[in-house]
Amino acid sequence: MKKSVSLGVDIGGTNTAIGVVDAEGNVLVKTNISTPKHGDTQQYVIEMAQAIRNLISDVQKLNPDVEFVGIGLGAPNANYYKGTIEYAPNLSFKGIVPLVDLLKVQFPEMPKIIMTNDANAATMGEMVYGGAKGMKNFVMYTLGTGVGSGIVVDGKLVYGHDGFAGECGHTMLVPGGRMCGCGIRGHLEAYCSAVGMKRTAFELMVEYNATDSLLAGKSFQELESKDIYDAAVKGDAIALKVFEITGDYLARGMADTISHTSPEAIFLFGGPTAAGDFIFEPIRKNLDKYLLQIFRGKCKILPSSLKRGDAAIVGASALVM
Amino acid sequence: MKKSVSLGVDIGGTNTAIGVVDAEGNVLVKTNISTPKHGDTQQYVIEMAQAIRNLISDVQKLNPDVEFVGIGLGAPNANYYKGTIEYAPNLSFKGIVPLVDLLKVQFPEMPKIIMTNDANAATMGEMVYGGAKGMKNFVMYTLGTGVGSGIVVDGKLVYGHDGFAGECGHTMLVPGGRMCGCGIRGHLEAYCSAVGMKRTAFELMVEYNATDSLLAGKSFQELESKDIYDAAVKGDAIALKVFEITGDYLARGMADTISHTSPEAIFLFGGPTAAGDFIFEPIRKNLDKYLLQIFRGKCKILPSSLKRGDAAIVGASALVM
Repeated sequence: MKKSVSLGVDIGGTNTAIGVVDAEGNVLVKTNISTPKHGDTQQYVIEMAQAIRNLISDVQKLNPDVEFVGIGLGAPNANYYKGTIEYAPNLSFKGIVPLVDLLKVQFPEMPKIIMTNDANAATMGEMVYGGAKGMKNFVMYTLGTGVGSGIVVDGKLVYGHDGFAGECGHTMLVPGGRMCGCGIRGHLEAYCSAVGMKRTAFELMVEYNATDSLLAGKSFQELESKDIYDAAVKGDAIALKVFEITGDYLARGMADTISHTSPEAIFLFGGPTAAGDFIFEPIRKNLDKYLLQIFRGKCKILPSSLKRGDAAIVGASALVM
Repeated sequence: MKKSVSLGVDIGGTNTAIGVVDAEGNVLVKTNISTPKHGDTQQYVIEMAQAIRNLISDVQKLNPDVEFVGIGLGAPNANYYKGTIEYAPNLSFKGIVPLVDLLKVQFPEMPKIIMTNDANAATMGEMVYGGAKGMKNFVMYTLGTGVGSGIVVDGKLVYGHDGFAGECGHTMLVPGGRMCGCGIRGHLEAYCSAVGMKRTAFELMVEYNATDSLLAGKSFQELESKDIYDAAVKGDAIALKVFEITGDYLARGMADTISHTSPEAIFLFGGPTAAGDFIFEPIRKNLDKYLLQIFRGKCKILPSSLKRGDAAIVGASALVM
């Protein structure tokens, strides 16, 4: 009997990660291509298809008895019902991209090609293989170039009326505040993404004229959230304050999410969560002060237990497995 | 064959409405008792039980062949799983009140006694008998002394992990803003409830020293949202501005709700909705400016089609029918 495997594709603002996943959720092989800045969808699909063919070939060399059951994709602003990416603020593609249809042309023999929100895909990974196993009501926030989220109610992902539900990154955090990538001021993403943390770091350096901060030697283009973590480890006051503030912002956003669907836990996934207690402690410390008494002390704030980079691939692959 | 009827009880901050409802959702008889300010649960249960017995007797006089299938209750901070009211900020009862158990002592012969959030009850009424008939994903905001909400995903009310989901009135609207009844600053309820509208009216009179406003002759105790409507009809600038601002606030809160569960429609229920276009127009006008492009122009903002006063009774009764 052939061994079933599936392809998982995670489309991020900068990179597109592609992997082959077995029925137990192990990533057998994986690769990366750039998510282009040029906005040319056809060119991107050709590059993605080539990378997928290379992986298929690699896996077939390892084990000739594998059977590919489908391709699952996670992408920002993906429409689960239509197989499209629509007006994604952090991608260079304009308007509505029928990515699933374009891939079907490349892989007419593939039994299933299904796409959902990248954050929803990571959420499915957490539910099937990770720390949310057995949970009926939970939420995942993914922190990267943007902030995504997936909401699970009664054991099922919430897609909503149009297939786009679960965009907690675009709820209002600071009315009239920073410009968000989507063009609206004050959204949570503008404060709590990796990029948002960088903006907070520069905001604080401006406020305190902190030329002595370990973060003061890098340009606005250069500084990354990893630099903020490294500086926090060394006790840098600005870096520590970035985590305090970001945790408080996340607590406020998560409180609003709890007031909507009252989950058992909210998982955090993505680069900035590698900072561990630096980011989790201020969330846990501040959460209750925004919550109705009935919700206080109940919702666990947990790191994703899936390996960084793999969660979205594994989650996307679970769509077709 | 006996005709099945049920009792619906809607516990509000000021009044408790009780009615007998038939299987088609018609209210056969109804009455009101005060929701007490004295905090004495036992006394309240005795008064409620007496009112229920009177209604039962009234209905049996009309039609001796009725069969009472149960009592459904809607109350703020009600726990569907436990049958309790817990720490309700707008009620005088302290801590956790086991209301369903107390009523079972009064009505040991009643087949079912079930309680949920008052807003959830109204939402069920809208789903079963009202404008949300056939909708799988919608939300209801109830505007009264406070602001409640009910969230429907995939045709089912969202109760969440603990039975308390759907408290959109306690999401953050203005960080650090007005004190909410729950003790936390800035919640939506402090701005968009009937009381919140009154607070906005006085805030505006303060700002413009508007002694010539039609609202300027009433005390802070006296002024009601109905007065604001009456003044708006007469063209009073302060009253008109109250509706403009309240609609914009509601649009902001609703945008966050749409970003969570992407409903087909959000229904508005309660006293202030009698103002019609005064309140609905500014919501519809402002909603898109807070939404991610993928959500714009999609979610209908609709008045509840259930009769004021009856929706919560009918909804509560639907819990046991």
